[in-house]
Amino acid sequence: MIKASIIGANGYTGLELMNLLSCHPQAKIAHIVSRSNAGIKARQLYPSLHRLGEKRFENLDLDAIAEGSDVVFSALPHSASAEVCGKLCRKGLKVIDLSADFRYRDKSVYEQWYKVKHPCPELCSRAVYGLPEIYREKIRGAQIVGNPGCYTTCSILALYPLLKEKAISPDGIIIDAKSGTSGAGRKAEADLSFCEVNENFKAYAVTTHRHTSEIEQELSLAAGRAVALSFTPHLLPIQRGILATIYCEPERGVMDGDIYSVYQKYYAGEPFVVINEEGVFPEIKHVRHSNYISIGFKLDKRINRLIIISALDNLVKGASGQAIQNMNIMFGLDEHAGLEHLSRYI
Amino acid sequence: MIKASIIGANGYTGLELMNLLSCHPQAKIAHIVSRSNAGIKARQLYPSLHRLGEKRFENLDLDAIAEGSDVVFSALPHSASAEVCGKLCRKGLKVIDLSADFRYRDKSVYEQWYKVKHPCPELCSRAVYGLPEIYREKIRGAQIVGNPGCYTTCSILALYPLLKEKAISPDGIIIDAKSGTSGAGRKAEADLSFCEVNENFKAYAVTTHRHTSEIEQELSLAAGRAVALSFTPHLLPIQRGILATIYCEPERGVMDGDIYSVYQKYYAGEPFVVINEEGVFPEIKHVRHSNYISIGFKLDKRINRLIIISALDNLVKGASGQAIQNMNIMFGLDEHAGLEHLSRYI
Amino acid sequence: MIKASIIGANGYTGLELMNLLSCHPQAKIAHIVSRSNAGIKARQLYPSLHRLGEKRFENLDLDAIAEGSDVVFSALPHSASAEVCGKLCRKGLKVIDLSADFRYRDKSVYEQWYKVKHPCPELCSRAVYGLPEIYREKIRGAQIVGNPGCYTTCSILALYPLLKEKAISPDGIIIDAKSGTSGAGRKAEADLSFCEVNENFKAYAVTTHRHTSEIEQELSLAAGRAVALSFTPHLLPIQRGILATIYCEPERGVMDGDIYSVYQKYYAGEPFVVINEEGVFPEIKHVRHSNYISIGFKLDKRINRLIIISALDNLVKGASGQAIQNMNIMFGLDEHAGLEHLSRYI
Amino acid sequence: MIKASIIGANGYTGLELMNLLSCHPQAKIAHIVSRSNAGIKARQLYPSLHRLGEKRFENLDLDAIAEGSDVVFSALPHSASAEVCGKLCRKGLKVIDLSADFRYRDKSVYEQWYKVKHPCPELCSRAVYGLPEIYREKIRGAQIVGNPGCYTTCSILALYPLLKEKAISPDGIIIDAKSGTSGAGRKAEADLSFCEVNENFKAYAVTTHRHTSEIEQELSLAAGRAVALSFTPHLLPIQRGILATIYCEPERGVMDGDIYSVYQKYYAGEPFVVINEEGVFPEIKHVRHSNYISIGFKLDKRINRLIIISALDNLVKGASGQAIQNMNIMFGLDEHAGLEHLSRYI
Repeated sequence: MIKASIIGANGYTGLELMNLLSCHPQAKIAHIVSRSNAGIKARQLYPSLHRLGEKRFENLDLDAIAEGSDVVFSALPHSASAEVCGKLCRKGLKVIDLSADFRYRDKSVYEQWYKVKHPCPELCSRAVYGLPEIYREKIRGAQIVGNPGCYTTCSILALYPLLKEKAISPDGIIIDAKSGTSGAGRKAEADLSFCEVNENFKAYAVTTHRHTSEIEQELSLAAGRAVALSFTPHLLPIQRGILATIYCEPERGVMDGDIYSVYQKYYAGEPFVVINEEGVFPEIKHVRHSNYISIGFKLDKRINRLIIISALDNLVKGASGQAIQNMNIMFGLDEHAGLEHLSRYI
Repeated sequence: MIKASIIGANGYTGLELMNLLSCHPQAKIAHIVSRSNAGIKARQLYPSLHRLGEKRFENLDLDAIAEGSDVVFSALPHSASAEVCGKLCRKGLKVIDLSADFRYRDKSVYEQWYKVKHPCPELCSRAVYGLPEIYREKIRGAQIVGNPGCYTTCSILALYPLLKEKAISPDGIIIDAKSGTSGAGRKAEADLSFCEVNENFKAYAVTTHRHTSEIEQELSLAAGRAVALSFTPHLLPIQRGILATIYCEPERGVMDGDIYSVYQKYYAGEPFVVINEEGVFPEIKHVRHSNYISIGFKLDKRINRLIIISALDNLVKGASGQAIQNMNIMFGLDEHAGLEHLSRYI
Repeated sequence: MIKASIIGANGYTGLELMNLLSCHPQAKIAHIVSRSNAGIKARQLYPSLHRLGEKRFENLDLDAIAEGSDVVFSALPHSASAEVCGKLCRKGLKVIDLSADFRYRDKSVYEQWYKVKHPCPELCSRAVYGLPEIYREKIRGAQIVGNPGCYTTCSILALYPLLKEKAISPDGIIIDAKSGTSGAGRKAEADLSFCEVNENFKAYAVTTHRHTSEIEQELSLAAGRAVALSFTPHLLPIQRGILATIYCEPERGVMDGDIYSVYQKYYAGEPFVVINEEGVFPEIKHVRHSNYISIGFKLDKRINRLIIISALDNLVKGASGQAIQNMNIMFGLDEHAGLEHLSRYI
Repeated sequence: MIKASIIGANGYTGLELMNLLSCHPQAKIAHIVSRSNAGIKARQLYPSLHRLGEKRFENLDLDAIAEGSDVVFSALPHSASAEVCGKLCRKGLKVIDLSADFRYRDKSVYEQWYKVKHPCPELCSRAVYGLPEIYREKIRGAQIVGNPGCYTTCSILALYPLLKEKAISPDGIIIDAKSGTSGAGRKAEADLSFCEVNENFKAYAVTTHRHTSEIEQELSLAAGRAVALSFTPHLLPIQRGILATIYCEPERGVMDGDIYSVYQKYYAGEPFVVINEEGVFPEIKHVRHSNYISIGFKLDKRINRLIIISALDNLVKGASGQAIQNMNIMFGLDEHAGLEHLSRYI
């Protein structure tokens, strides 16, 4: 059994990690760390964690964690996370970081968008971007994985193959993304209160959302040239799920069948990617509580534009489920392990 | 035009007061006071207040308020409210207090349930309990009105006539009440966040909710003897509305028709009370955004129990609408004034 | 008092018309027609309609309507509506049609997108497109008004001035629109049931929604040349409201200030249009239950794209409120009449 | 591997059975029957059923089912279900019936409340009431199990031990129950549409709900005498979950500790029952998507009343999860099998 610890376990991604690991057939939870809840049972904070029994949150004790863990998931905020991850790596542990700290190839891009100095730049070059559909082989040998963002996973997987195969233009891409409220984390903010969010809908961080830079990084690699795009996130009055509506221009002569073929070429054997037939689109309830991403598309010949819609659960494929998938790869397990039982239509 | 000011205007009852007063045909808003938002336009905090134009929140300036107002609504927290209300009364203003401070006939009951010393006990005996259906004549001549609580309005109006007419036993009454989340106010609390409230339902303050004492006070007056009852509030994942399911024992020989007759006797001419035929029950959407309370009932002969269901909007008839109704009475206006246009089925 | 009748009064736009007219200071409801509910009180179907008293739905009796009405609102489905509207016009009544039947300048465009033969083509040329911000003068003298669609009002008002003033390119416009569920009407469909809609989000009618043609018609007139654009509607798990996120390309040299100036030029005196400062965006709760449309924008200089966000309530400014606004104009009333009291932040 | 078939697989309890069985480590799905969807892939109707691959709904073929199945779950409507279950039993299959048809000890009670003649009365005496916490031993040897209703499971488990141990009076019990909308099934009804259910709350079937008779049957057995009680169901604007607030009278001398002890005595070793400390109450999010029932209680000494709150997921412990638990017992499997991974706080 792989011994897994979680740091920053009290938030929603931490909750999801505890949830998933408590049912994983080949892993067990070692330490769960939360400074603000140290000493409290996980079940007191989240009574749904029936399977965690008497397990309690602990203070951060690097030696205890190093001794009792094979892998550590960090769900700390960015910058704070890199500091702790660095120390854990130096103690020889495998680390999966759910913050943004190890997602960037170019530290200066990170520092520009996150407006902090990177606390552990020496590790960046060794970190692998944890998107299994693209970097599976590198993840297999990684010591530290930068687990991708939720919006970014949903956006990159929809566009990467099409750019790589030059089926669409790298210019003028628009990603209109909508996310459930759990993406904002578990916070005491009036703006996130039920009365403010329910029966409402709004855009936020228009032209300035940090995930823009992460999406552009990976799509530039796919396109073989710099990609600059429009990314607009919106807040949905639901708990989980992201749906991205993507607009782009097909290259001359590209037909519906070509788009489908490109997706098949890249994702045919993928355990968690669903490609729908042309004109069939995913809804959030098709993937919520699951590790799947579902992608649909349609060519609007009237105006020569390709519309792609992709959907995933922000806490699973967009965060903690993908982190478990990365763990499975890093430890040579079946990629499905611990991730099979999750879909919930209602 | 009556000049009305609002103190503690930034919360949801304050918002509703601003909303209602901005459309009132015979009143206009003088001052809106919010220490934490002083200097800010009301429309910046609540962009839906289109009709408030450039109106800004102010700091509390008793002299300015006294000079420019005929009536003041206080939406301050209990205890803080009584202090301010006392000063305003002494300056000769009419005051409608939406806190609990002037609802109690016996200061010691207030002090026991609210666990504070009453800051202005000398005013209590002059204050009128602002339930128009019961105390309309007294309200007409009042300088200070203690505006009833939301749960209490919903509970008292359903039971008062039946106890007064001895149609039901004063023993063994159970009030199982469910409220929308706006009843908790506009707060930055993780427990009130969308992800915690949505798709959830829970009881709270079981056996200890303060409104119990207010309900018992009025129903004891109706019954002519002490009434002690069971009151259990629950939190609904909706924004507005209260529905109370009430269980009580009919006195011997009481029939369906008798219940209906009693309600008719008390409420036939009431502008904002709807009595449904036996077996027809109100839903929250029948009254939301309105100043109406709707009451239904059914006698379960199989087990000799009367079930009453009453519904209202906690921010309107349960708070700010009732406060406007009280203002209308105090100033001799049509009771409907400013309260006609509100029902919203969806 | 203007005597107004409603045909097809049982659906949500009919409900909203009854709601609004029952509080209108210069209009009163004459006949409410619903074949499927004839004989039933409006309050039985919608108990929130307290102010409608004993008013009952009737069968369609053209003579009775003609005799007792100054104006008729038709909320019938398209095609059925034109037939009835034609007869009412011939009897000399003023008619406001909420269906699509009288929105098109070119009957063949209507017939192509709605896939029916127009039942009353001779009236089309006399009908006025009921968007007051653009066609106020024509509406004033109209006998029959084609009341615009919900998505179309939200889209056209955001783009019309910018195209007219050549501030943006007429090519490549993308409208990503999201609507509350009341837009689908009151229907018994499993797909519209609470369990299917709640906690979900999806696109629908991708590349094929009929409102596309209506938007293109008006924007082509603004641009002075044919405009073909991408319009993608989505279903929000809320009851009311539309928010459209619009992407377009600014013409060379256009700055933020230019955009704001163009909007000011067209909408400065408009009673129901709010233009926000650059970078401030509307949310659905800013306009729900109101007749306002709120528009925000931001120039993304990094990629030279203009993002516009517009929001309105689909049942009010997107349907019944705009219909009342049109009635006010047609009868020379204050445009605010009956439309002042509606905003609801929560 | 146990081969399990589902009849009436297209509704929400059928969906949940497919969901659970597709992840069960010792069972596999044989046939899924739905007349209205025969020939269609399960994934077309419910795209979240990723694990069902190409599995298609079939027409009802009793021979094929008998040949290929060890156990059959019937999710047909009552009366239709008994007919099919009878035939399957005669073919030697084990049957778990999720309808009400085999829940009653006295056929005439069933016929009175369900207003149909029982189509298969000869099987009733052999059927076992499938509540494992009370009838585990009988379930072990049963050929046919009548799987309990959702409200009934939530109510009976909260009260059975207390009545059995004479800790509470069998008279005057009140059950005020609230259920999510999935309890109404997957239906095309305007009353179940999003716009009608959302932001609303209502009671229904007041004094007449059929589950009353099922609760009374079991509690009468516990009390050793006839129990008649008040049961009032309400419709919550959520998808899943039931919370019941129960009011009863403690017998003389009963203390908090006694209540806790009685629950411990009956449920200490139960795999899916959580008993909370006095004054700690379950919420729906503590049990949603899980097979757990959670029970809390408090003695209100002021008025000598015991308040019990119990919560479960209506589709899992209230239906399909409990059915799987029964299957596990009937086939000698670990009772947790296939039911471990389900809790979802958000």
